[in-house]
Amino acid sequence: MSPSKPWRILVLNGPNLNMLGKREASLYGHETLADVEVLCAAKAAQLGAQLAFYQSNYEGALVERIQQAREDADLIVINPAAYTHTSVAIRDALLAAEKPVVEIHISNIHKREPFRHHSYVSDIALGQVVGLGIRGYAYAMEAGITHLESQVASKP
Amino acid sequence: MSPSKPWRILVLNGPNLNMLGKREASLYGHETLADVEVLCAAKAAQLGAQLAFYQSNYEGALVERIQQAREDADLIVINPAAYTHTSVAIRDALLAAEKPVVEIHISNIHKREPFRHHSYVSDIALGQVVGLGIRGYAYAMEAGITHLESQVASKP
Amino acid sequence: MSPSKPWRILVLNGPNLNMLGKREASLYGHETLADVEVLCAAKAAQLGAQLAFYQSNYEGALVERIQQAREDADLIVINPAAYTHTSVAIRDALLAAEKPVVEIHISNIHKREPFRHHSYVSDIALGQVVGLGIRGYAYAMEAGITHLESQVASKP
Amino acid sequence: MSPSKPWRILVLNGPNLNMLGKREASLYGHETLADVEVLCAAKAAQLGAQLAFYQSNYEGALVERIQQAREDADLIVINPAAYTHTSVAIRDALLAAEKPVVEIHISNIHKREPFRHHSYVSDIALGQVVGLGIRGYAYAMEAGITHLESQVASKP
Amino acid sequence: MSPSKPWRILVLNGPNLNMLGKREASLYGHETLADVEVLCAAKAAQLGAQLAFYQSNYEGALVERIQQAREDADLIVINPAAYTHTSVAIRDALLAAEKPVVEIHISNIHKREPFRHHSYVSDIALGQVVGLGIRGYAYAMEAGITHLESQVASKP
Amino acid sequence: MSPSKPWRILVLNGPNLNMLGKREASLYGHETLADVEVLCAAKAAQLGAQLAFYQSNYEGALVERIQQAREDADLIVINPAAYTHTSVAIRDALLAAEKPVVEIHISNIHKREPFRHHSYVSDIALGQVVGLGIRGYAYAMEAGITHLESQVASKP
Amino acid sequence: MSPSKPWRILVLNGPNLNMLGKREASLYGHETLADVEVLCAAKAAQLGAQLAFYQSNYEGALVERIQQAREDADLIVINPAAYTHTSVAIRDALLAAEKPVVEIHISNIHKREPFRHHSYVSDIALGQVVGLGIRGYAYAMEAGITHLESQVASKP
Amino acid sequence: MSPSKPWRILVLNGPNLNMLGKREASLYGHETLADVEVLCAAKAAQLGAQLAFYQSNYEGALVERIQQAREDADLIVINPAAYTHTSVAIRDALLAAEKPVVEIHISNIHKREPFRHHSYVSDIALGQVVGLGIRGYAYAMEAGITHLESQVASKP
Amino acid sequence: MSPSKPWRILVLNGPNLNMLGKREASLYGHETLADVEVLCAAKAAQLGAQLAFYQSNYEGALVERIQQAREDADLIVINPAAYTHTSVAIRDALLAAEKPVVEIHISNIHKREPFRHHSYVSDIALGQVVGLGIRGYAYAMEAGITHLESQVASKP
Amino acid sequence: MSPSKPWRILVLNGPNLNMLGKREASLYGHETLADVEVLCAAKAAQLGAQLAFYQSNYEGALVERIQQAREDADLIVINPAAYTHTSVAIRDALLAAEKPVVEIHISNIHKREPFRHHSYVSDIALGQVVGLGIRGYAYAMEAGITHLESQVASKP
Amino acid sequence: MSPSKPWRILVLNGPNLNMLGKREASLYGHETLADVEVLCAAKAAQLGAQLAFYQSNYEGALVERIQQAREDADLIVINPAAYTHTSVAIRDALLAAEKPVVEIHISNIHKREPFRHHSYVSDIALGQVVGLGIRGYAYAMEAGITHLESQVASKP
Amino acid sequence: MSPSKPWRILVLNGPNLNMLGKREASLYGHETLADVEVLCAAKAAQLGAQLAFYQSNYEGALVERIQQAREDADLIVINPAAYTHTSVAIRDALLAAEKPVVEIHISNIHKREPFRHHSYVSDIALGQVVGLGIRGYAYAMEAGITHLESQVASKP
Repeated sequence: MSPSKPWRILVLNGPNLNMLGKREASLYGHETLADVEVLCAAKAAQLGAQLAFYQSNYEGALVERIQQAREDADLIVINPAAYTHTSVAIRDALLAAEKPVVEIHISNIHKREPFRHHSYVSDIALGQVVGLGIRGYAYAMEAGITHLESQVASKP
Repeated sequence: MSPSKPWRILVLNGPNLNMLGKREASLYGHETLADVEVLCAAKAAQLGAQLAFYQSNYEGALVERIQQAREDADLIVINPAAYTHTSVAIRDALLAAEKPVVEIHISNIHKREPFRHHSYVSDIALGQVVGLGIRGYAYAMEAGITHLESQVASKP
Repeated sequence: MSPSKPWRILVLNGPNLNMLGKREASLYGHETLADVEVLCAAKAAQLGAQLAFYQSNYEGALVERIQQAREDADLIVINPAAYTHTSVAIRDALLAAEKPVVEIHISNIHKREPFRHHSYVSDIALGQVVGLGIRGYAYAMEAGITHLESQVASKP
Repeated sequence: MSPSKPWRILVLNGPNLNMLGKREASLYGHETLADVEVLCAAKAAQLGAQLAFYQSNYEGALVERIQQAREDADLIVINPAAYTHTSVAIRDALLAAEKPVVEIHISNIHKREPFRHHSYVSDIALGQVVGLGIRGYAYAMEAGITHLESQVASKP
Repeated sequence: MSPSKPWRILVLNGPNLNMLGKREASLYGHETLADVEVLCAAKAAQLGAQLAFYQSNYEGALVERIQQAREDADLIVINPAAYTHTSVAIRDALLAAEKPVVEIHISNIHKREPFRHHSYVSDIALGQVVGLGIRGYAYAMEAGITHLESQVASKP
Repeated sequence: MSPSKPWRILVLNGPNLNMLGKREASLYGHETLADVEVLCAAKAAQLGAQLAFYQSNYEGALVERIQQAREDADLIVINPAAYTHTSVAIRDALLAAEKPVVEIHISNIHKREPFRHHSYVSDIALGQVVGLGIRGYAYAMEAGITHLESQVASKP
Repeated sequence: MSPSKPWRILVLNGPNLNMLGKREASLYGHETLADVEVLCAAKAAQLGAQLAFYQSNYEGALVERIQQAREDADLIVINPAAYTHTSVAIRDALLAAEKPVVEIHISNIHKREPFRHHSYVSDIALGQVVGLGIRGYAYAMEAGITHLESQVASKP
Repeated sequence: MSPSKPWRILVLNGPNLNMLGKREASLYGHETLADVEVLCAAKAAQLGAQLAFYQSNYEGALVERIQQAREDADLIVINPAAYTHTSVAIRDALLAAEKPVVEIHISNIHKREPFRHHSYVSDIALGQVVGLGIRGYAYAMEAGITHLESQVASKP
Repeated sequence: MSPSKPWRILVLNGPNLNMLGKREASLYGHETLADVEVLCAAKAAQLGAQLAFYQSNYEGALVERIQQAREDADLIVINPAAYTHTSVAIRDALLAAEKPVVEIHISNIHKREPFRHHSYVSDIALGQVVGLGIRGYAYAMEAGITHLESQVASKP
Repeated sequence: MSPSKPWRILVLNGPNLNMLGKREASLYGHETLADVEVLCAAKAAQLGAQLAFYQSNYEGALVERIQQAREDADLIVINPAAYTHTSVAIRDALLAAEKPVVEIHISNIHKREPFRHHSYVSDIALGQVVGLGIRGYAYAMEAGITHLESQVASKP
Repeated sequence: MSPSKPWRILVLNGPNLNMLGKREASLYGHETLADVEVLCAAKAAQLGAQLAFYQSNYEGALVERIQQAREDADLIVINPAAYTHTSVAIRDALLAAEKPVVEIHISNIHKREPFRHHSYVSDIALGQVVGLGIRGYAYAMEAGITHLESQVASKP
Repeated sequence: MSPSKPWRILVLNGPNLNMLGKREASLYGHETLADVEVLCAAKAAQLGAQLAFYQSNYEGALVERIQQAREDADLIVINPAAYTHTSVAIRDALLAAEKPVVEIHISNIHKREPFRHHSYVSDIALGQVVGLGIRGYAYAMEAGITHLESQVASKP
């Protein structure tokens, strides 16, 4: 409730993102998850923030990492991947975390199958970055920090 | 098929219930999962029954604990939390367990988002207790044991 | 607004519940509505509360009994039976009564026809007890009284 | 369970059927409810059966008349009129009565508004006669008695 | 068919409107049904018309009062309240009455639950007044009389 | 347009009705299509009418038989069987025939799969007889002839 | 926020209302938009209010006139005509105007095509007047002014 | 087809965005459209690109500005506001422009009414930035230019 | 109402049709709107009719051009383009014009996105020509004139 | 694949079109199928093409005639009548034929029952002519031949 | 009911399968129906069973062949092709045949249009083989015979 | 991309399949998962292929096993059990694996609850074997290998 710098950012990645760059390059591009982590680390440095970066293929593991964020993060940037469309448990963990959330998708989910058009995260997040490639992580991080700063600024 | 006392009750808790009392108190109250376990243990003692108490954030872990219940439980009381609305695997495990099931929700799911109004468990359970706080666990346990007793009583 | 003990409980029963125990025993069991009243009276005594018990097959009569509850009850326990699924008038009467409501169904409505899965009461009630037999009335009464006590307790 | 002749037929009429012949003649014809009763009485006489004939505009009154039929009727012929489409309470009363039911509509409900195409009675009745005018009552009575006779015949 | 002055207006009120002003003032205001009757009487006087004013919580009673209107009213102003959304019987009675109908709702039903957005009356009425408070009764009466006058005027 | 006695009745039967009595007796009973024809012939004799009786498993053949009815029938009684739910062509042929139609189903289609609840014939027929066994053919014939007689009677 | 008399009323009319009285008289009557303006002016005079009256066939023009109402109107009475059912832009302009809105339709939209049953305005308006002819404008104006007066009255 | 630097960016704004900062600050913040233009100009300068900035409340005007973009822009950044949800014409103009498009919304449309969850633009855009405030314009511009650069880079 | 030769044909074109032949040639072909006008002029000459040809990207402008057609046209041939699927205002203007309408689409809208399968014009038009290229305008004109001629012919 | 003149056109007609002109003249007009054939023959002659003309009430017969068209036709013009809305088999036969198809309906199917608004043919056809009377056959033939000519023209 | 070897297998093929291998090879492959028959004959020989092989484009013919199977087959393997999705008559014939049924589709219907995802056969069949090419017939035959053998084995 | 014999087959089993043969024998039979493995091993041997056999109750574990298949398998045969209906993550892993997939279900999912009729796998698989018992694994393996062989054969 009384956060102080440096801001702690948790970047979360859902199932199959460990395969990034190794599959379906026409859809997701050639960059790997390691490249995403490098990009996020650089952005965190630029923002003067700390970065934690995590990926799991297990819904339960993502839930538990989010629960831990109550204690060790000020901002959650999440690419829930397939769990975007199916996980109420991740939604509930995000609600319980009570931290600002920004949702990011590398590809444009609105160009794909109809079941990918609904997200269990989007209405509880600050906002979404969709289809702008891995640069979207940087936009999400920056927007989240801007939000945190404005929250601080608006308090007496 | 020929159960004998003391009845063995398995109380199961789904994802994010380990956060109970630590978040969103207006929705779930201030009691923790440890408080729930104390309440269930007291009720089990009152009923002359044995209690096993389990929580997991992993759908797979819950499935496996339910599978084990074929051997070590006579009654399943389950608060599937978020998996209520998304898990066919837990439904299938409960069907395979072939034990009576009582479903319990601490908060009133009918006051929340529409996707929380459907349960994959309710039509295969004896019944549901919804929105009556953690006392609902005790009601569920008592109702389940009453059912087991009546099953025994109705056999020659 | 300033209730004092003994709490006054109104238990309401909708259409065809006067036939309880006289029909479809495989679905509803052998106990009659008189048995339910005995059970509720015993529970009220145990809770130190007063009981009013009412059944009608007329939607209008139920509406009027609920209206009267503004003056003569602190808690409404209702088994709306068939009107669960069709009566906005009973919903409106409950809203106008401005008393806590607990919904109870003897059989598991989620195992029956799809039109029985929706309730006009559940989202305006504290909670529901479903499918746990006539013991559900006792659970509903106890949970309602616990709620009233906690309301009193939380006031200065 | 062991019915014997003369068969007792209850003919029930729902809301606004007391206005029959006094309104919307192009839809319902010029015959009144009294004409229907005369027709039914004649048919009952021909079938060697007893007739009880009842109309109400109150859902609750129809429910109670059906409840009473457990004791005083072997066959229910019902034109639920508007309650066809809205009353689960009448459906439940018919289920509780555990007597064969034949549903009758004077006009062709399939030519009218879409909400008139669904009936809460048709899937629990022996059958339906729709749109054949007031002669439909006689067909329903005869078909119901034929069913009862065949039930008796098929018992040793 | 050949109405002559003074016009006879029947104002009908559905379930829970007897509680008006006694409940949920933020939604319905502080005026009571007696206030509505005073307002309607004043408007009737201004219009040179006779007023009959009726309320019931029973669907059947409303049906019968409407049936009677065939004989004793030239215009029906109706606030069906909860029955707006559930009563085909009232719709059928209004159709059978063959009198002009104006529908009135004190609060704005379009701001409330989705099931309140559908009316079984609106497509068979001249029109609707919604959400304009109890003044809506006066508008409905005046509009109905204007319609009757124009009907007379357009005949040779 | 100027029909004269004896009335000519065409009774049509759709696919698989040639198997009647040879299959699924619990659903359709033990009587065969030959029994139905005998029953219809007797009823026609009683009504002083001529009977044509036809069955086909081919949608096209039924369409053509109906087309021919423009010339050789005054009334069509049809049990479209499976084509009830799928054939717009039969609907169109019946519309083109411009003869009164009565629809008949031996079993109660409302007790069966949801796709059997819709009929392409019912809204263009005089009415329906459903679930009353093969006696339904006789009721349909009689009701159709009654209609024809009343049409004649109502002309100067 | 501190409005003072005389109240300024903006009456808005959507597409094709400039054709009023020139087309489809059975649906909309013989009065023209000029007649509506005369009626509104008379009502404004009676209410001691100022009137601005505007019609456009362009969604954008209506949006801009509503935007201007932030500065020059206290009440908006709008007949959005076809844009009722399709314009989110007008809804957004009304939301941005932050003035009370009353919706009016000359004909009864509930008697027409299903797509006319939904309004993008009704849930953000005070209320609706539907199907009562051009007198509905006067009712809407009066009801809106009554609302403004009551707002003033309820402030200290 | 053979674009060369400086890239030309067209930033388009739909209806009511001219009211930005003047209304509903809790939803859209305090910044005005002039602030957005300043922000976009700064970003364009940083990217070495040219900026054209346009707002209209007219669907037709937006369509025509997009048509012109075939000739005078390399990238379209669009906040279609209310037309997001209703305009096929803007979609068609964007398709005809055959330029990359990035969609931006200042507030989180997924937290608002259901009709705001569908966009006629999102499946034909590169991607979306939603709910991140006016900084989203900068992200959209940068992502669009990155895309253009990568397109050039991937050509021989 | 008493039209006389030469017939006056108004050919209307909706949004983005001014881009015809300049975009998406695989979908719409290489011909421009000027080519369409030439084709229509030739057809008008052949039919001995007068041609007015109009295109706009503004819904409001199309509405007003249609309104004017009450006075200066006998037949409307319209390709509403994107407004086919979204404009009730154009539908209403066409209804108010009270002239025969033929709808034309150059490409086959049934091969495209589902939202293009519904037209607000088709059920109020004489007919449609879809997917037959720009020759469809000629067919529409000829069919419309044939209709007008037959209307004249069928009058005494 | 290398078609040469004269083009061979197959005109197909579905069920009940043999009744054309003999029924429902207000819907389909007075012309018979023989008149259609004369019209088509004249048009074929004008186009320098050969005509085959076929009608059947049997879905299977139409399927087989279409299969044969692989060998003996270059263009299929089809009025599938009732099978438009129900026959996947005809759709599949048309797909297998691999010839251009033009769909034609004499009356405007969009003015009729909702089930007539969907066509199993329209998305696999070049286009549709709807509601323009029997002249529509001529338009369809001409458009199809124009298409074939353009296909030839576009080949080297 | 007491089948004895050799088992009699009926392999049925629906509309357009006579075109197999002659059309759309990318979807269905190059093998013809004659090839399928050879494959089935070989499999029957291997299984020691008798084979009857039938194809028709007529729904009625398929219905009649299935009816005959009551007498001359122990197992039905059916590829209903287009009738999979539209024929209740074939479903009813299969139900009447009271023989085990295995459904087979050469191509993967789940990759095609949505209307191909529903089958009127699958819930009354033992199972389905989909998308595995013509080898699927052999699998279906073998699985069906295995089922028959197990039925025999499980009888005393 | 250049696979060589022996083919490597991965057979995957979803949640609760470890309980096979231990529960609900009427639905799934008496054979255990060990029996399935023996059957698959035998089939692999017959096909000259290598077998890997895996079961997990964890969605994440299945995802990771599929990811690994990019490296160590040529064919995936999968019985996703409950995850069939709920797991987009498994679908995505299968898409990322870029290996042919055959889906197998032991019981007939089309005879069960409606939510079991949809599969997230079926439209990305070669095909499905449903309801043919554990033999279905062998069919799936054989069909997959046949596909691989044909892929090799069709390359130069």
